[in-house]
Amino acid sequence: MSDLLWPGDERAGTLFDARSMVEGMVALEAAWSSGLVDHGLAPADAAVTSAELEALVTAADLDGLALAAEGGGNPVIPLLHVLRTRLVAADRTEAARWLHRGLTSQDVVDTAVVLCCATALRRLEIEFSSQVDALTALADAHRGTLMVGRTLTQHAVPTTFGAKAAGWLAGVVDARATAVFAHSVLPVQLGGAAGTLAGTVELARLRGVRDPVRTTVALTDEVAAALGLQASPPWHTSRFPLTRVGDALATATSAFGHIASDVVTLTRPEIREVGEPTAPGRGGSSTMPQKQNPVLAVLVRRAVITNPGLAATLHTAAGLANDERPDGAWHAEWATLRDLARRTVVAAAHTTELVRGLRVDAAGMVARARAADGLLAERDAVHALLDEPAPTAPGSDDPSSYLGVIDPIVDRRITP
Amino acid sequence: MSDLLWPGDERAGTLFDARSMVEGMVALEAAWSSGLVDHGLAPADAAVTSAELEALVTAADLDGLALAAEGGGNPVIPLLHVLRTRLVAADRTEAARWLHRGLTSQDVVDTAVVLCCATALRRLEIEFSSQVDALTALADAHRGTLMVGRTLTQHAVPTTFGAKAAGWLAGVVDARATAVFAHSVLPVQLGGAAGTLAGTVELARLRGVRDPVRTTVALTDEVAAALGLQASPPWHTSRFPLTRVGDALATATSAFGHIASDVVTLTRPEIREVGEPTAPGRGGSSTMPQKQNPVLAVLVRRAVITNPGLAATLHTAAGLANDERPDGAWHAEWATLRDLARRTVVAAAHTTELVRGLRVDAAGMVARARAADGLLAERDAVHALLDEPAPTAPGSDDPSSYLGVIDPIVDRRITP
Amino acid sequence: MSDLLWPGDERAGTLFDARSMVEGMVALEAAWSSGLVDHGLAPADAAVTSAELEALVTAADLDGLALAAEGGGNPVIPLLHVLRTRLVAADRTEAARWLHRGLTSQDVVDTAVVLCCATALRRLEIEFSSQVDALTALADAHRGTLMVGRTLTQHAVPTTFGAKAAGWLAGVVDARATAVFAHSVLPVQLGGAAGTLAGTVELARLRGVRDPVRTTVALTDEVAAALGLQASPPWHTSRFPLTRVGDALATATSAFGHIASDVVTLTRPEIREVGEPTAPGRGGSSTMPQKQNPVLAVLVRRAVITNPGLAATLHTAAGLANDERPDGAWHAEWATLRDLARRTVVAAAHTTELVRGLRVDAAGMVARARAADGLLAERDAVHALLDEPAPTAPGSDDPSSYLGVIDPIVDRRITP
Amino acid sequence: MSDLLWPGDERAGTLFDARSMVEGMVALEAAWSSGLVDHGLAPADAAVTSAELEALVTAADLDGLALAAEGGGNPVIPLLHVLRTRLVAADRTEAARWLHRGLTSQDVVDTAVVLCCATALRRLEIEFSSQVDALTALADAHRGTLMVGRTLTQHAVPTTFGAKAAGWLAGVVDARATAVFAHSVLPVQLGGAAGTLAGTVELARLRGVRDPVRTTVALTDEVAAALGLQASPPWHTSRFPLTRVGDALATATSAFGHIASDVVTLTRPEIREVGEPTAPGRGGSSTMPQKQNPVLAVLVRRAVITNPGLAATLHTAAGLANDERPDGAWHAEWATLRDLARRTVVAAAHTTELVRGLRVDAAGMVARARAADGLLAERDAVHALLDEPAPTAPGSDDPSSYLGVIDPIVDRRITP
Repeated sequence: MSDLLWPGDERAGTLFDARSMVEGMVALEAAWSSGLVDHGLAPADAAVTSAELEALVTAADLDGLALAAEGGGNPVIPLLHVLRTRLVAADRTEAARWLHRGLTSQDVVDTAVVLCCATALRRLEIEFSSQVDALTALADAHRGTLMVGRTLTQHAVPTTFGAKAAGWLAGVVDARATAVFAHSVLPVQLGGAAGTLAGTVELARLRGVRDPVRTTVALTDEVAAALGLQASPPWHTSRFPLTRVGDALATATSAFGHIASDVVTLTRPEIREVGEPTAPGRGGSSTMPQKQNPVLAVLVRRAVITNPGLAATLHTAAGLANDERPDGAWHAEWATLRDLARRTVVAAAHTTELVRGLRVDAAGMVARARAADGLLAERDAVHALLDEPAPTAPGSDDPSSYLGVIDPIVDRRITP
Repeated sequence: MSDLLWPGDERAGTLFDARSMVEGMVALEAAWSSGLVDHGLAPADAAVTSAELEALVTAADLDGLALAAEGGGNPVIPLLHVLRTRLVAADRTEAARWLHRGLTSQDVVDTAVVLCCATALRRLEIEFSSQVDALTALADAHRGTLMVGRTLTQHAVPTTFGAKAAGWLAGVVDARATAVFAHSVLPVQLGGAAGTLAGTVELARLRGVRDPVRTTVALTDEVAAALGLQASPPWHTSRFPLTRVGDALATATSAFGHIASDVVTLTRPEIREVGEPTAPGRGGSSTMPQKQNPVLAVLVRRAVITNPGLAATLHTAAGLANDERPDGAWHAEWATLRDLARRTVVAAAHTTELVRGLRVDAAGMVARARAADGLLAERDAVHALLDEPAPTAPGSDDPSSYLGVIDPIVDRRITP
Repeated sequence: MSDLLWPGDERAGTLFDARSMVEGMVALEAAWSSGLVDHGLAPADAAVTSAELEALVTAADLDGLALAAEGGGNPVIPLLHVLRTRLVAADRTEAARWLHRGLTSQDVVDTAVVLCCATALRRLEIEFSSQVDALTALADAHRGTLMVGRTLTQHAVPTTFGAKAAGWLAGVVDARATAVFAHSVLPVQLGGAAGTLAGTVELARLRGVRDPVRTTVALTDEVAAALGLQASPPWHTSRFPLTRVGDALATATSAFGHIASDVVTLTRPEIREVGEPTAPGRGGSSTMPQKQNPVLAVLVRRAVITNPGLAATLHTAAGLANDERPDGAWHAEWATLRDLARRTVVAAAHTTELVRGLRVDAAGMVARARAADGLLAERDAVHALLDEPAPTAPGSDDPSSYLGVIDPIVDRRITP
Repeated sequence: MSDLLWPGDERAGTLFDARSMVEGMVALEAAWSSGLVDHGLAPADAAVTSAELEALVTAADLDGLALAAEGGGNPVIPLLHVLRTRLVAADRTEAARWLHRGLTSQDVVDTAVVLCCATALRRLEIEFSSQVDALTALADAHRGTLMVGRTLTQHAVPTTFGAKAAGWLAGVVDARATAVFAHSVLPVQLGGAAGTLAGTVELARLRGVRDPVRTTVALTDEVAAALGLQASPPWHTSRFPLTRVGDALATATSAFGHIASDVVTLTRPEIREVGEPTAPGRGGSSTMPQKQNPVLAVLVRRAVITNPGLAATLHTAAGLANDERPDGAWHAEWATLRDLARRTVVAAAHTTELVRGLRVDAAGMVARARAADGLLAERDAVHALLDEPAPTAPGSDDPSSYLGVIDPIVDRRITP
């Protein structure tokens, strides 16, 4: 995927694209069919593999699936139609007959969405890991690089660039922990028509299974394990696995935005204390060849403006969930999560590149701090408090003498 | 376009897709080149037509344009590269040399976005028009169809289905007026590198034009007219033409959602006073063949949950616009407007189909109203107020005798 | 009102406070009672005036009204209880008996909300007017004040501060027009229990009025006129008068934010091309006496972050409106509109003060522009295009020679 | 506090009100002063207690503090002015001189906000606990209460009310865990002017403390412990402690909304399978005495419409945080968190009352399920799949025979 209106979108690769969703949907159908067979609920030749089902759906089918999804409101009916038709054509009649038995469309779509979320969170973890390394190195290397502290845009007291990088790191570490947790509790969705799995229990009963209920529960737990997801009672209308992912993505976006919001200031020509990494074709203008725009930071900031609203949409949907399947709230989630996940991954990749290649003008930072007015006014007030005159000895106007607890701050932030 | 995760998306056709955006971008480049030539600022063979430029960009180019857009943060640099290279290859060297002279990337992207907005608003107008016809007919036909009035989910006093349809119509009429106004003031974007059009004035000066400034202004006005847009000073950082469109789209979505929110209630099996139009494959379930889901209303309601946040994003972006081109706020608008516009058009189409084919169980409405308890309690209170006993004459328990001003309400709503 | 957590809140005065809402509610009750009497539906001594009702509700009652509002979900029942009790105590038994006859709580709350919106929009108009004057003066005075144009944070080509101020003005003018329109169509809400005004028609019928329906409609039109509002069929579930106000308020906020977002950049110590107006106690720090923070701009920007989401909430509510009175969507509107209105008015007042007192360092702007690198690169490219060498004559590096169409831009923006 | 426009607001008590914020602010100042004294950085008579400072600020001061907060953009400067003046008047000159030394206004406001968040989360925990008890009891008691399963508003397959209650419980349990975690990591804010605590280190140095940096860090850790908060490096621009609370509050709101969204459907007169608890004055109408509105559910749903946007605002603010103190993003957080916290607590209280007093018409549920058409269509399809005819034996049309795994679902949900 690429998107002319969201430059950089291709960095999210195939995440949540139609093919990925189909792969997620057939992964559930396949795991379920195997489970039915394993427990003797379906005949042995009812079992299908994910690979077998994937092979039945070609790129040329995807548009048709999307078109036909409108009828039932989701893509499962047309996907099943394609799969069954082709299974029959391939002499896999039993597989066709047994496909999806006991499931409902929401089981299939939700599990596919969850698997795509897992992919997003794995991808984010790679970016977080790189960012933590790069920011740790920046914070450590520049813990003593004197810099003007700025509050409400104005010069305040001295700080160091290492302290700033440690603050950036704090957000990334928080966002990473949030994402790791959301990832660790991603559940499979298996509930059947109205969340009772009654069809499967009935099958087991007709098959003469000794404890149909226990067997069905065991089956769902095994399917969860096979997909690398948590077992769970159905959550057709308890949408918190998804809001948890959404909040993690919004948190990540804000952590990246924090960095980018500093960078757009610090790269201004009047300040120029940091520079974005350069690359061929990066940061150019259509008419002004001399320009070098901080385009990575700019693109990250765009996500700060769009993503929180998407995460909020998931909460609204969760709060409007009703009946045993919601009447619109469910359908609002899929594209919202896709857009939120892709944009967060893209922003993550931009941020990784930004922090790994950040050019730091340490000398310029120090020079500005040394030249700034009033940076030591607070220090002088402290001296006055103790009835000591403001220091006048040589070096007493050196802002690097007034740096407080930067080392412990940096150490606490960079220590995992 | 179609979207597996937004069933029905194809109803928005090519709106705001990559090709449409490219067409919008080259439309501006072409109109501008003609303007330069017309005013003697460029040689005659610098002029290109929209058709000529469109022909230079193939479907196979679109993905590459999107990929290359990241470098400068927007797709104009790669588009110009493709266009110039192919113009040169086609022996149109002068056209290649003069392409985009005086413009900036924001002029090109913004004008293309505006042209896509115009398309969206034209499409909406067609839907509004159908809806007004259908709702006017429903309101008129059912002005006397007795129905239980419901407030806070409980039965209140009698009303009629015509009054309800008139209320639906009210929203559509309001949304239509809002959209028509937003459409009527859509401006071209022409400002050059920092909104001064200095490059064009310089060209005119070098060309010996008598009044370079006046000539440049005339040129921009002519380009606006050629594109069917309003002339305007540059609005690179005054983003209200776009928030106005966004608000119009959100208003439309809410008007559709109002209808859909009634329909999901009234189609419940326990109520079933209206039914969605049926169509082959519509409203089915993957496991329960007997079901008939109100899928149009469900899909419309999904947009109510997603779209207001997208309109809000445009306001946030507008309020963060800074400098002579914003550092992220601009980039957040494009995909946001696309998603908002497409989803609104899809919801519009669903709503049109819904209201045109709505099945009204008038007899059922009347029967429920006649059977409902307490519908005339307010009337009896009015009688008691005048020290008249509650009516006991034959027919005195007929709720259709207590319908108030429904005719004038319907008449005011259905009269344009 | 004042708000420790929203400094400056008191600038919105009593807007939308409990007293103002009560005044709005009794204004409707009073106008309605007079209408009933005028048309002979109620006895002459049923008429009450707004002043009479207002006098019955003391400041000490407001908390009790708020507490008692929970039972019915809105404050009308307890307000009526207070009014009726005290009317009886004041020997105004007929007035007590007739109060609210024919109305419903939503009529009363909605009309009061609308009246508060009117107050907000009137107040905004005053601010807009001052801002237009100030910005017109700035744009005109500084149309020739050379300034660095900045795009994506980097220096681009020359512009002038007048052009920037004209861009700020553009937003204010747009926002003003949006607000004026929203104000001009604010409707009264008069529908009775389920939007049919059946109780009033029944009264008229019992009173022997010749045309009860026509009389009732006339009565509603007169009440609208008495309150300075538009007559309208009931809009209990067609909430577009309120989304229109919300969108106008969000538009205003964005217009103010555009200005503030420039100011926080331009007041940075490294740039310092503008300064906020100073005032005693303004912009100070709790520990750094030397600091002068751009606190007006900072406070305005806070509203850009909060207000768009509030406007979106109104659209969500409008799209979820169902039945003849919504089951939660209605109740979400009141505090949302209050917060949005107050914050917008506060931001307006801050912006007015900011633009009226803005300190412009014209000399500094010019000096930076003259010293900046690369500001004329585009010009040189234009020359190269015409095979002319880059100018080398004395003055050829003067950026003020490359200012394009600034005069017409300023003229178009400042001409009403 | 009470709020005429947010009925029920008083259920949040004094949460986040001006007095609570002042108490939080002076709690930090007091703890800090004690720490300074304990470590020998300030003289013994510089120590103040929270109670001492609280006593200096009267209710009459609060409005003045709010008014004066505008000058610096936050309430700390005026609060310090009041405190110092009155300390001096009380012959506590040293306490006055030493107050706030080493701190910055953001330390004070942020810590107060965090303490208010802690109060909110404690209060929520009480509500969650009651809800878990009530919902566990409902789920357990009604695990066998047959009910129509509804998907996309239409009848699907049988379920039980216990399964529905277990689904409600799932959300509450998730929300509780999210809130507990957010609570457990709430940090103190202690950074001084620009996050380096330089003033305190300087004090320690002047006092001849052996290791000024280590002493300062120890001091901050002790202050955190004294306030019941986590020690932390400064997070002036890393706002994730607050977004974490915001997300927890939005999650709670959605969990409550899920319940309420079912209740507004199930209390409809045509369904009436559950009823809200009744209470004097609850659910009444201003004109229709017969009505019993589900007002608790309605008021909860209002929060679903407003709260997600507030949580999103916190993420936007976090992502725009820049410099060592943000230029507007910080200021947007306070009232947003207050409104979000209060509305969530109010919705929690409404939900507790709702689920504790919910009237369940078990007989009606069963009767509807037995009468419903098509509830066993899926079962018959399962039988057909196995080439068995649809059951025709007596009792074969009993939907309670087709309930699947409800017991394990309920057991998993109700087991902590």
